[in-house]
Amino acid sequence: MADKSHISETDIIARYFAPLAAETPGAFSLRDDAGLIQPPDGMDVVLTTDVILSGVHFLESGAPQDVAYKALAVNVSDLCAKGADPAVYLLSLALPDNPEERWLEGIREGLAEAQTDFGCTLLGGDTVRTPGPATLSITAAGYVPKGQMVHRFGAGEGDMVYVTGTIGDAALGLLLSQGANAAKGSLSADQVAFLRERYRRPQPRIAAIEIVRAHANAAMDVSDGLAGDFFKLCAASGVGGSIDAAKVPTSEAAASWITVQPERFHNAITGGDDYEILLTVSRNASADIETACAQAGIDVSPIGRILSADSGVEILDENGNPLELSQKSFSHF
Amino acid sequence: MADKSHISETDIIARYFAPLAAETPGAFSLRDDAGLIQPPDGMDVVLTTDVILSGVHFLESGAPQDVAYKALAVNVSDLCAKGADPAVYLLSLALPDNPEERWLEGIREGLAEAQTDFGCTLLGGDTVRTPGPATLSITAAGYVPKGQMVHRFGAGEGDMVYVTGTIGDAALGLLLSQGANAAKGSLSADQVAFLRERYRRPQPRIAAIEIVRAHANAAMDVSDGLAGDFFKLCAASGVGGSIDAAKVPTSEAAASWITVQPERFHNAITGGDDYEILLTVSRNASADIETACAQAGIDVSPIGRILSADSGVEILDENGNPLELSQKSFSHF
Repeated sequence: MADKSHISETDIIARYFAPLAAETPGAFSLRDDAGLIQPPDGMDVVLTTDVILSGVHFLESGAPQDVAYKALAVNVSDLCAKGADPAVYLLSLALPDNPEERWLEGIREGLAEAQTDFGCTLLGGDTVRTPGPATLSITAAGYVPKGQMVHRFGAGEGDMVYVTGTIGDAALGLLLSQGANAAKGSLSADQVAFLRERYRRPQPRIAAIEIVRAHANAAMDVSDGLAGDFFKLCAASGVGGSIDAAKVPTSEAAASWITVQPERFHNAITGGDDYEILLTVSRNASADIETACAQAGIDVSPIGRILSADSGVEILDENGNPLELSQKSFSHF
Repeated sequence: MADKSHISETDIIARYFAPLAAETPGAFSLRDDAGLIQPPDGMDVVLTTDVILSGVHFLESGAPQDVAYKALAVNVSDLCAKGADPAVYLLSLALPDNPEERWLEGIREGLAEAQTDFGCTLLGGDTVRTPGPATLSITAAGYVPKGQMVHRFGAGEGDMVYVTGTIGDAALGLLLSQGANAAKGSLSADQVAFLRERYRRPQPRIAAIEIVRAHANAAMDVSDGLAGDFFKLCAASGVGGSIDAAKVPTSEAAASWITVQPERFHNAITGGDDYEILLTVSRNASADIETACAQAGIDVSPIGRILSADSGVEILDENGNPLELSQKSFSHF
């Protein structure tokens, strides 16, 4: 073997990633070329994949712990919105030449935290060197009882539209991290910290999985902005729909800022990175879902309704007039 | 929506990738946030992931058709070596800003060809923009009857070591593509083309899947070089082993070159990209596997044996002396 002063691929796997797979049946301590899953009887497997790139999905100055946490969070968030319980994930890691061990240790820490928070473990992966930015590509697998996966395209005319949690915190937090100033005095230091934290550590709605499965006709996670994601949900379902801007739930921090600078509402509903769940339910299920969410300690807000296909898709202001949005959501291209 | 002169993410998916998912049950025409697989009764799911980067795993001048074909091939190759039948795959694509549509069309074509050759279809994916090199990250899923996955770590003392096909063609083909000259007159134009093609279009051993499952105690695909991969197989299995260099199967083209430049044998067994299957079988199963391979039209060669752990791992020359290898296999770090 050539003498190499830097860490080998085998060492990277053994030192940083095998510990993350220690509890995974079917990961074989990452000593095989593939992982095995044995879905429990009566369960289907939901698979989703999302890529996270340095400088694109996170600030290049971002701590590796946060990068890794977010990479798993965004994948698990997709599973939650499909009603699937997270089980395992595969990680493809493209690393700069001679990666710093401190950086790798940060990635390991972030994944370890995320695994614990989300209830899934590492199944396998691949590690390569890239001349480009560090890239984490994760595929997550979850289980759902046969036939119970919830789709983006299941919305029907007359459905109520709900969203969990609050919208816009992450987008506003990112603005702050990028140097935007909230209007003087409109945000306390705690509120600034809260908004930044919502960008830094997205929290997929694990507690909502069963509720989504039980009640939602259609669901998706809000990752690219509420406005654009609502548009996508309606388009996929072949329906129209409207959201009342006044009903879109905002945190105290976001509301403080928006009160002083109303144009920030636009950032809030188009900025993305919320990782809340947007869902529709039949009108007669609205009481049930509100009760179920209350019992699970999840805030959920009715924000609009699904209309016929020819009604179009709109966000309405308090006078019932459609908002003009220069761009409905984040797009990579 | 902002007016954009270039292609949108939605258009990329609809135009280039949805056709690849048209036949996939559970892909929902790529209109959902995740894909669904319903493993047939009695089947386990094998998951593997591999990344392919422009300029690292393929020449930057490489045709997109070849890049895409190889990206799927290397994943399917892992499934073959585990005894799993390829079913579906997810594709994460990191693209340069404003990708050329001709390039995307080439990616689509290469994947379409590979799908047909390997018998699997697209289940889902993600598309992002990168300031770095184009990156294809694929996760492939295959099915294997419960409990029959074949592992890298199953080799036992006394096993015979086999490898399918011929070794070193791709490594020598890459050398040629990089401008190396074969010794004058040692290779015909057809032989040069053959070696390059083996690098350009790896052929995972689909026809060997059932045979691996039925007979192999341990198996892995040869992707990083026979020498290093044999070392990994022995290490994972906790055994020693030896390969007889003289028994390593080479193509006519590779043999012609090696005859004139014997040092090219070193490239052949350490270069990688063979995508053949390295496997071990119990001594009493050797006739069976040779018969099964002959019936399936697969060349398979006995190249060595598995020894006790304290015997070490070696490649022996014709006098029984261990070869000195400066580097046993390709490593990214």
